[in-house]
Amino acid sequence: MSQPDTQILERLYDLLLERRKADPDSSYVASLYAKGRDRILQKVGEEAVETIIAGKGDDDRALVMESADLIFHLWVMLAERGLEPEVLYAELERRFGHS
Amino acid sequence: MSQPDTQILERLYDLLLERRKADPDSSYVASLYAKGRDRILQKVGEEAVETIIAGKGDDDRALVMESADLIFHLWVMLAERGLEPEVLYAELERRFGHS
Amino acid sequence: MSQPDTQILERLYDLLLERRKADPDSSYVASLYAKGRDRILQKVGEEAVETIIAGKGDDDRALVMESADLIFHLWVMLAERGLEPEVLYAELERRFGHS
Amino acid sequence: MSQPDTQILERLYDLLLERRKADPDSSYVASLYAKGRDRILQKVGEEAVETIIAGKGDDDRALVMESADLIFHLWVMLAERGLEPEVLYAELERRFGHS
Repeated sequence: MSQPDTQILERLYDLLLERRKADPDSSYVASLYAKGRDRILQKVGEEAVETIIAGKGDDDRALVMESADLIFHLWVMLAERGLEPEVLYAELERRFGHS
Repeated sequence: MSQPDTQILERLYDLLLERRKADPDSSYVASLYAKGRDRILQKVGEEAVETIIAGKGDDDRALVMESADLIFHLWVMLAERGLEPEVLYAELERRFGHS
Repeated sequence: MSQPDTQILERLYDLLLERRKADPDSSYVASLYAKGRDRILQKVGEEAVETIIAGKGDDDRALVMESADLIFHLWVMLAERGLEPEVLYAELERRFGHS
Repeated sequence: MSQPDTQILERLYDLLLERRKADPDSSYVASLYAKGRDRILQKVGEEAVETIIAGKGDDDRALVMESADLIFHLWVMLAERGLEPEVLYAELERRFGHS
C-alpha cells in the first residue's frame, strides 16, 4: 500500500462504472444515471456552486465536504460517458508533468 | 512507477504549493494567488460552467480539457488554503472505500 | 395599464418583501428566507446552471421556464437584503440608457 | 413617464436585438453574438458565479453591479434566440400575478 490515498479515485471510478448496470432504485448513483446526462451535469453545477459558497467561508471541513461532492459528481459524469480518469490525468501530465 | 497516472495529482499539488512563494508576474498560478481567493473561486466557477457546456456536447476531448481545467483550479483553491488533497481522498475513502 | 408586462417584476418584489415576515412553513419563499442567505445563493446558482443547460438545447419553452426561475431567485436574493430592483434598473440605465 | 425604471429592460432588449445585425468589431455585444451561443451561456454562468461571490459579501454596491451584469447577459441570451422578455414576464405573471 504505497499510495493508499489516491487509489480511492480509481476505486470510486470502478464502482461508478459498475453501478451503470444497476437497478435505478438500488442506489443514488444508479438513480442519477437513470435520470440522464442533464441531471448529472446539473449536479456537477450544484456542487460547484456549493464549493464556491463554502470557499467564501472559513470552515475547511465544509470546503472539503463540498469539494468531495464535486469530484464525486465529476467522476459520475465521466463514468456515464465511459471516459476514464486516466485521460484526465494524461492531460494534466501533458500540461504540468515536466514543470 | 506502479501508479504513473494518479501521481500527477500529487505532483500538481506540490507544484501549486511551491508557486505560492513565487513572484506574481512569474506564472499564471502566481498571478492567481496574488489576485486572491475570490478570483480563484471565480475561476473554479467558470471552469465548472465550461465543463457543463462541454458535457452537453459530444466532443469527449473538449470535456476532458474542461474537466482538467476544473480539477486544476480546484487544486489551486485547496493549495491557497494549504488544504492537502489527502483530506479530500480521506473523505471519499470514508464514503466509498468499503462499498 | 400601459405596461402590464414589466409591472410583474415590481409586484413580485413587493410580494417577496412581504413574505419576509411570514411563517417559514407558510410558503416556499418564507422557507428560503428561514434557511438563510447561503441557501438563497445556492438556488441562484442552481437556476443559473439549469438555464445554461436549457440554453444548450432547442426548447424555447424550457429556457423561458428556467430563466423565470433564475429571475425569481435573484429577486429573492435582493429582497432578503432589502435591495430594491430599482437600484439594478438605475445601474442598467446608467450603462445603456443613452446608447 | 409613470415607470421610468423598468422601461430600461425593454430599451436594453431592443438595443440588443438591433446589435445582432452589427459588425462583430463594433461593440462588445456584437462580438458576443459572433462568438456564438456557447460563449453567451458561458458569460451567463460567469456572471452568476460573480453574483454568488458578491452575495456572500457585505458590499451591496458590488452585488448590484454583478446582478446587473447577470441580467444583461441573460438578456443577450434571450435576444440571440429572438425570445422577447415578455414571454418571461408572462410566465412570472402566470405564477405570481394573482398571489
